[in-house]
Parts: sequence; C-alpha cells; structure tokens
Amino acid sequence: MHKKLFIPGPVEVKDDVLQKMATPMIGHRTKEASKLQRDISEKLMKLFYTKNQVMLSTTSGTGLMEAAIRSCTRKRAAVFVVGAFGKRWYDMAVANNVPVDKFEVEWGSATTPEMVDEVLSTGKYDLITVTHNETSTGIMNPVGEIGEVVKKYPDVVFCVDTVSSAGGAKIEVDKWGIDVCITSTQKALGLPPGLAICTVSEKALEAAKQVEHRGFYLDLLRLYQYIQKKDHQYPSTPSIPHMYALDYQLDKILEEGLENRFARHKEMADYVRAWAKKYFDLFADERYASNTLTTIKNTRGINVAELNKRLGMRGYMISNGYGNLKEKTFRIAHMADTTLPEVKELLENIEDILEL
Amino acid sequence: MHKKLFIPGPVEVKDDVLQKMATPMIGHRTKEASKLQRDISEKLMKLFYTKNQVMLSTTSGTGLMEAAIRSCTRKRAAVFVVGAFGKRWYDMAVANNVPVDKFEVEWGSATTPEMVDEVLSTGKYDLITVTHNETSTGIMNPVGEIGEVVKKYPDVVFCVDTVSSAGGAKIEVDKWGIDVCITSTQKALGLPPGLAICTVSEKALEAAKQVEHRGFYLDLLRLYQYIQKKDHQYPSTPSIPHMYALDYQLDKILEEGLENRFARHKEMADYVRAWAKKYFDLFADERYASNTLTTIKNTRGINVAELNKRLGMRGYMISNGYGNLKEKTFRIAHMADTTLPEVKELLENIEDILEL
Repeated sequence: MHKKLFIPGPVEVKDDVLQKMATPMIGHRTKEASKLQRDISEKLMKLFYTKNQVMLSTTSGTGLMEAAIRSCTRKRAAVFVVGAFGKRWYDMAVANNVPVDKFEVEWGSATTPEMVDEVLSTGKYDLITVTHNETSTGIMNPVGEIGEVVKKYPDVVFCVDTVSSAGGAKIEVDKWGIDVCITSTQKALGLPPGLAICTVSEKALEAAKQVEHRGFYLDLLRLYQYIQKKDHQYPSTPSIPHMYALDYQLDKILEEGLENRFARHKEMADYVRAWAKKYFDLFADERYASNTLTTIKNTRGINVAELNKRLGMRGYMISNGYGNLKEKTFRIAHMADTTLPEVKELLENIEDILEL
Repeated sequence: MHKKLFIPGPVEVKDDVLQKMATPMIGHRTKEASKLQRDISEKLMKLFYTKNQVMLSTTSGTGLMEAAIRSCTRKRAAVFVVGAFGKRWYDMAVANNVPVDKFEVEWGSATTPEMVDEVLSTGKYDLITVTHNETSTGIMNPVGEIGEVVKKYPDVVFCVDTVSSAGGAKIEVDKWGIDVCITSTQKALGLPPGLAICTVSEKALEAAKQVEHRGFYLDLLRLYQYIQKKDHQYPSTPSIPHMYALDYQLDKILEEGLENRFARHKEMADYVRAWAKKYFDLFADERYASNTLTTIKNTRGINVAELNKRLGMRGYMISNGYGNLKEKTFRIAHMADTTLPEVKELLENIEDILEL
C-alpha cells in the first residue's frame, strides 16, 4: 500500500505531475531544450521575486549548497547553524579546504539579525550561509531581517538554503538581498527529488571570479557562463524528466497563486501547531516556527517508531526526530500540494492510534 | 511530432521504462529505499562483471568522473585523450587543482596499451583515466588490453569512462582491473538522463583515504562509507524516479541476456559501418570502432544540418559532428533498445533524402 507522505521530503507528488516524468526524451542540445529550460527559469524568477538568473543542477540541494560556498568564498565563510542542515554547510566548506567558522545556536532557536551583525562586524568574513527553514528542528529563520543587516557589508555574499521552504513560504530574493538562494524539487515545490535550483546575483558571480579552484560540475560561475552562451542549456546532460515535471508544476503553482499557496501553507502550519500544543509541545521557538513542517516535542513519551508503523498500516507516514532528536521529537511536514483536510485526516488518525 | 533519437544520448526510452519514472514517491530513509538501491547495485554488478561495490550518484556522468579524479589522485593523474570527453577529465583535474598531464592522440585514433605503458613507466603517476567509448569520434579504446598494462603498476588507480558504452558492449571490470568504472543512464542503458553509476575498488578507496580535501557531494569515499553504514541509502536525497526506472530496465536487460544485448549492438554497428563505407567513409580507425555509435566522415560535403532538419520532419534525429567536427562529420548512435530494423529504416530515409 502506498503511504501518503507527511515527511519533510520526498513529499507526496500529484499523479499528473508524476506523469510528466514519463515524457518521451528530446535532445538536450535542441532549441526545444533551451525553451523548456528558459521557461522554467522565468517561472522560478517569479517564485523567488528576483531578476537574478535562475540555474538548475542535476544534484540534490546539497550539490548547489557546496557549489555556493566553494565557488564564492574568497576570504572566509561564516556558517550560521540552527540544526543538522546548517551544520552540513560547515562540513562542506571543511571538505573543500574553504576557511570557515560556524556559529551554532541551541537547536530549536533561530539565527537572529543581531548575531549576524556581530559576526560580520569583525570584518573577517566575505560569505555567510543561513538556513531559511531547518528541517531537523522546524525553525524558520528571519532571513528578510538578516538580509537588512547583511546589506551593511557590501563585500559579503549572502547564501540561503531554502530547500524546505521555497514554494511554501514567501522568499523575496531581491528585496532581502540574497545572492545565492538554493532549493530543490522534492520539498514544498511538490516534485520528485533529483534536481536542485538556485538564483545567483552579479555579486556572487564577481566573487566567484576571484576564486581560483572552484571545481567543475559544481562551479557556479562555469554553470552561469554556459547558460548565458548556450541559451539555458547545461554543460552536462541534465535530468530532462525533472525539467518537464518542474515546468508543468510551476504552471500549477502560479495558477494557484503564490500568495494563496503561501497562505495555504500557513493555515496548515497554524493548525498543526495548535494541535501539537494541545496534545504535546512545540520543539522550536514559536516566534520562528516553520511554515512547512512542525517538530513536536514528545512530552508524552510515546513510541514514535511504533506510531509511525501503525500510521503506515493506515497509509500515512510521518518522520521521527532527526539524529539525536529521534523519539524525543517527531515531525509532521505540511508542504507542497498537501491540503488542510489531508492534514486533519492525518492528525485524527494519530489521535485515534494514541487514544488522545 | 516526437523525433526518434539516434543521437549519442539522450536515447530513445521505451514507454514502459518511461512509465516507471512516474512511480509514486517513497521516503529515501525507508527499508523499501534500501532494498530498491541494493537490488540495483546487485544487478549492475552483473552488468559490469564485478564484485566491487556499485554506487549511484544524482549527477550526470561528469559528476562521477570528477569525483574519481579528485578523490583518488594522490600524486599526479595521467589523462588519455582521444576526443572531447577525454579532454573533459583533464579540465576537471585542473579545476580542482589536481596535478595532471594529458596525453592526446589525433582525433579518430585510439589510446594503445603501449602509450599507457610508456607514460606509467615514468613513475610520475598514480591515477590514469581512459575513455572507453569516445562519443565525439566513435573510437572504442582497447580497455582490456590497457588494463593488462596497468596491472604492472600496483599503485595506479585505473579510472574508465564507460558513459556511452556500458550496456552496449562487454565491460569486464574485475578481469580488466578497472578501479573506478563510470557510466550514466541516458546512453546504452536506455534510460532518461539524471543518474550516474560507478563501480569502486578497494584500491580506489584506499587511495581516497590518502587524499585530504575530496569535497563533499562528489567524494567517492564518503559515498561509499555512507552506503556501507546505511544499507545502500545515500547521503543526500537521490533521484528516486531514476531508481525505479533503472531497476526495471536492468531486469529487462538481464532478461534479454547480456551477451545477446552486446551482440545486437555489434550487429547494428557492423551494419552502420558497412553503410557508411558504401556512401561516405569512417572517421575513426576501424580497428577501434565503437559498438554504440558511428562517426561518419562527410566525404560528400552534404549539408548535415539540413539533412537532420529533413530527417526531423520524418520523425528521426541524428547528430552533427562534435565541436570542430561539425559538418565535417555526422554521428549515428545505435545503442540502448534500438533494433537493427529501426537502424535500417533510418538509413533508408537518409538515402532517400540524399538521393543516394
């Protein structure tokens, strides 16, 4: 039996979107491929409220996160960590011999503009990374406010991981001053995994020009130059099935309306949080609670693995806590094309199983 | 109108295989995902005649080529170049500050065991890369014979690009002593692009342990260790649609029988070469002619772009020459699930258009 996914990616993908993955192949050096990829970029520019170039990468989001920190750090990177996926950015820098420091808060807390200002005021850093939505803890950082602070430091390249928020929360790339904004297909965009997306600013590209060894497949500047030269074609053969599905899904997203889509996500988030507070507690600081997933503190000491097993028999799947938070928390994703009635149905099933 | 692809990737993909790309999503941290990925690895071990671990990467073949040369070169790499894709391996090393020299023959010629022996006898190199099947020229290098030479140098990691041959020609990884054998889905395997595959030997892994900065997403050792620890799961969310399609297609390939499949490719290659010699000439040294694509010398001075346009109106697509070979050559791929009758039909259409 198929389990309806309420995990923070891969998410449930609608049948008509899945069907686009089965589109017959075309050559990746054709005008048709250019048009497909140019259309996608233009639609994503709307989603990200940006005039910057949008680029696609046949990798997971991790691939483009590494590309950003390796390609654009000239002096030293400051990585702000609020959970497991923030820490990953630090590990990537270390693995590439990119000078880096990490600034970690207690899990469940947010990165604040004040923290970022304090760190940048040292003058040691020319790139920072912030996680918009931290999948391990359920924190959504105030990236817009952080962006205001970053603007005081014109040399600093501002990289943001929006992997689990893009498509589920408003992300105003140009207004917030984000230089590299990264996401991937399998979260709030409602597609299968296998493709990553970023926006890239002039500032980020200028920074990359000053970095000598940026690698090849994950070199942001090389990717950009190729796209410019070859009308949105990619240096290596990309995942054409994902292109077709993404193009189609973006039409559906724009048809729903971005504001409507974000409001739907907020409505689901509000409902799940109210439910969590009624029966359990929230793990994350509620002032910074995520629009796309909720991490619930297991105050009742329930057996989460067992709950998920029983949900599975009913055709649903949620997530246990991440890493050390396993059994201490559990996570419910409410993103992509999931609706409030579906969320309610899930929660009713949990209540029923736990006899709440 | 859909054009039937006779280009060297992406290839024509059968409808039932495409349909597997539309399989509903599952969590990538489930037992189901482990089983799927383990099954794929075991089937690919048969295809590659190896006991080495098979690993998948959500990238194009380029991604794993870069992973190999960056992860496993301790001292200096020797890159043997017979065309555009060989040269790419050199560019990747340079982009990663990996010490490297390239040994290029005239396009249309092969890399010989003697050349490799001469280069390795200098003692300067601890990794070599060879292109098995060069898509720009139609050369299939004698990798088995080269492997015999490499065995004399126990410190040398032997990396082979089989992107456009795996699934269309016999590649005996263990017998030939290949340490990292790389391919991707969109060529002779008959699947959409978006996933890369490699086999990795103990020797390659030991070499990687001696390399300090191997990066993150494309670190072969990190990938291997994760797979071992997590029963064939991957560090980042992989392209699950490709996994489903690959698993299904591998069953079909093994059902056809590997030897039958290779014989079918050879039969198509023989037919296309005989046709090419009758009306044009071969670009590549025929002693090393490829099983999966033929590069034809445009001895008649036909307008290749125009021919392809007219073929397009009839529902077929071939490839112009690569880079500087454009209009001087053209390429016909005969790989994956293409059959001899389909190849004959294409050639008859070319004869008809050109009034041969």
